[in-house]
Amino acid sequence: MNFELTKEYIAQLQKAIEEQDTGFIKTEMEELYPSDISEILYELDTDEAHYLINQLETDLAAEIISNLDPTDRKRFLKVFTSAELAEYINVADSDDAVDILNEQNIEVREEVIALLKDREQARFILDMLNYPNDVAGGLMQKELVKIKVSQTVTECVEEIRRQAEDVEKVYAVYVTDDEGILLGIVSLKKIILAKRGSKIADIFESDIVSVKTTTIGEEVADLMQRYDLEALPVVNVQGRLLGRITIDDVLDFVTEQAQEDLQVVAGLAGDVEETDSVLTLVKARLPWLLVGMVGSFMAAKIIDRFDDSVAAIPAIAAFIPLIGSTGGNVGIQSSSLVVQSLADKSGLDTSLPERLRKSLWVAFLNALVAGIFAFGGSLLVDGANVPLSFVVAMSVMSIVMLASLMGTLTPLVLNYFGINPAIASGPFITTTNDLLGYGVYFLIVYLLL
Amino acid sequence: MNFELTKEYIAQLQKAIEEQDTGFIKTEMEELYPSDISEILYELDTDEAHYLINQLETDLAAEIISNLDPTDRKRFLKVFTSAELAEYINVADSDDAVDILNEQNIEVREEVIALLKDREQARFILDMLNYPNDVAGGLMQKELVKIKVSQTVTECVEEIRRQAEDVEKVYAVYVTDDEGILLGIVSLKKIILAKRGSKIADIFESDIVSVKTTTIGEEVADLMQRYDLEALPVVNVQGRLLGRITIDDVLDFVTEQAQEDLQVVAGLAGDVEETDSVLTLVKARLPWLLVGMVGSFMAAKIIDRFDDSVAAIPAIAAFIPLIGSTGGNVGIQSSSLVVQSLADKSGLDTSLPERLRKSLWVAFLNALVAGIFAFGGSLLVDGANVPLSFVVAMSVMSIVMLASLMGTLTPLVLNYFGINPAIASGPFITTTNDLLGYGVYFLIVYLLL
Repeated sequence: MNFELTKEYIAQLQKAIEEQDTGFIKTEMEELYPSDISEILYELDTDEAHYLINQLETDLAAEIISNLDPTDRKRFLKVFTSAELAEYINVADSDDAVDILNEQNIEVREEVIALLKDREQARFILDMLNYPNDVAGGLMQKELVKIKVSQTVTECVEEIRRQAEDVEKVYAVYVTDDEGILLGIVSLKKIILAKRGSKIADIFESDIVSVKTTTIGEEVADLMQRYDLEALPVVNVQGRLLGRITIDDVLDFVTEQAQEDLQVVAGLAGDVEETDSVLTLVKARLPWLLVGMVGSFMAAKIIDRFDDSVAAIPAIAAFIPLIGSTGGNVGIQSSSLVVQSLADKSGLDTSLPERLRKSLWVAFLNALVAGIFAFGGSLLVDGANVPLSFVVAMSVMSIVMLASLMGTLTPLVLNYFGINPAIASGPFITTTNDLLGYGVYFLIVYLLL
Repeated sequence: MNFELTKEYIAQLQKAIEEQDTGFIKTEMEELYPSDISEILYELDTDEAHYLINQLETDLAAEIISNLDPTDRKRFLKVFTSAELAEYINVADSDDAVDILNEQNIEVREEVIALLKDREQARFILDMLNYPNDVAGGLMQKELVKIKVSQTVTECVEEIRRQAEDVEKVYAVYVTDDEGILLGIVSLKKIILAKRGSKIADIFESDIVSVKTTTIGEEVADLMQRYDLEALPVVNVQGRLLGRITIDDVLDFVTEQAQEDLQVVAGLAGDVEETDSVLTLVKARLPWLLVGMVGSFMAAKIIDRFDDSVAAIPAIAAFIPLIGSTGGNVGIQSSSLVVQSLADKSGLDTSLPERLRKSLWVAFLNALVAGIFAFGGSLLVDGANVPLSFVVAMSVMSIVMLASLMGTLTPLVLNYFGINPAIASGPFITTTNDLLGYGVYFLIVYLLL
């Protein structure tokens, strides 16, 4: 059953909420997955959503709230009292509980934690609040099934039975010593196939991958991807098992990171969404806008030096955009390929001379075609002014070559000095190529015209 | 054990390969995960890698080859005979087998399929080759554990035992009727906790999510993410269970998609890597370069109309880059936010008037700050020419407002007409904003100076 949301369905539900028809609401919601109910909440106003959530079982409501998008959730939970919140946080998965509390202001957070009935959950949450949400400590949940290495498969099955309600996804059982030090795992498949009396010590897998609480999210994602894991245990410096990170959280993390990367390329400072406040959006957009303008002022300073040439042949000005945008486009094309292969572990084998040799060939062929195209195009624009068109074509060719070289070298140099090339390449390359481009263009103009 | 690759280790291994010290190679490789051996292969030359692979167990070798990056794998497998390839394809997971064969040319592909000992694998591969690799049919594997609804838990455990070797990751057992129509699943947790004699019919979960072979990859990823699934069954039009898609493949798919999205923003046509051939790279880069140039020629045509103004006040030309890049930056910032919220299902509640109202406020505040900044900056550049600086500031303000509006509206309009706004917005918005920007600038120059 794949659920599809319709306007009619929402209208029907809104009517039921208005009429406080709890019978209809409960029956309808029972039919749906928690994630589908989360989708419905986005379509209701805050009070309607609040009413609907309050009609549901606490466990179900907690899961629905956990599924919500952080920005929408923050707005939505404003109408909840701390007591209501505490009720849901009490039964939510520990990692979701921490995320939700992190979105609240400090007073609400403290009130809610004080009100939690499950004191173990409260202690864990207090510990987890110390980690930023992009390291293993901030991504992990405490819900997992663990067993001591001295126990048997029968005891293990009992343990699974006891914890089954708390732990939604059991992929494997974690094996520890008496001090809680992580020794390995037993997969559920192995437990099913083992004789009930077998000792855990005889069947567990000791050769496993684990991470520390401080391991960064990118490395967590990389490890889970490289080793095809569905869960990754998190240990402290002594090797004590603290929690696990499940693959669904890593998938969410990777998706968010991808969005942030795209935003960096689009020139947005910080992770924002269209639904954020006007001021947040302005703050995310202005810095890069102003940095870009500083680059343009430097370009203006260069062009200003050639005002005699411009005054003599004003048509020169018409091709300034061609020079700027061609340089920018070529630079971003080159650098993004290099950034990408730097991020990819399988690219280690490309040596610097090999990289340059290839990028120069690509640049040369691009420059040739772009130069011919520029000659033809500018002839059309400037009324068959052959000398000027020749200058434009020469400039385009030089700029394609130079911008390719800069675009290839910049990320390599930044990477060498330990600066993340993905973030720093864009603005640096665009500005440098702009300045280089105008310099070359006006130099050729000055020399040839 | 978290493996780290060192130059010393590679040198040691290369020495062992040169001396044909198979004992050393086998002992060392036994210590490692298959994915770590894949990493090592990237550092060896093709013949060394070929030799190393041939020393390993067929199953292990097949897994290592499956883990390789497609581009590197294609190059690497060129030294393998069809008979060698067939040996590995025979035991590889069916989805990987299809991927590997898809990378080979048609003769090799047919030879290998003809040589496969496992004829069931051969038949499945022939079926799968019909699907593009970005739909469910191309992402699925046939390896899964299934059982008939009429059977018992005891029989199910036997079935798991029988298939355990073939199916590496068992998350759940699929339940079908006698015709193979998918009815539901039983989780391993439930099997462990159930009494051995229980009937599958009594314990299986019938309310599950499945997809058709033609479902696109993005939807597969979205479903698995929304419902936190680790595997998704694939059925044909009659509902017959054909295979499953596992979350590790979806994680790979999402990562690749993110890379492609970034490439689109960077102006690359088609999915390329730095290691691709010179000609492939030129083909990916030239189209967008030339399209961008056409836009610049149109800009040149506009600027050309004002050559009297430029001849009179050549300093006007100096601010052409400022106008162009500010408009471009603002447009991409605005459009990427809208594209992002169009892709996000939770953004459905933003109405058009609400969107425009907000985007105008953001634009207004940005325009105000950018305008003041432009006034100051241009005063510095043009030697305190107040009238010109005023014109530049006015133009920047107008362009920030106009480009924001265009950046917001264009993706919405494209989306309305069913055109993917993510792909088409970038070049369209950049070109339109350039033209708009130069038009406004020279109009203000013409009117005020």
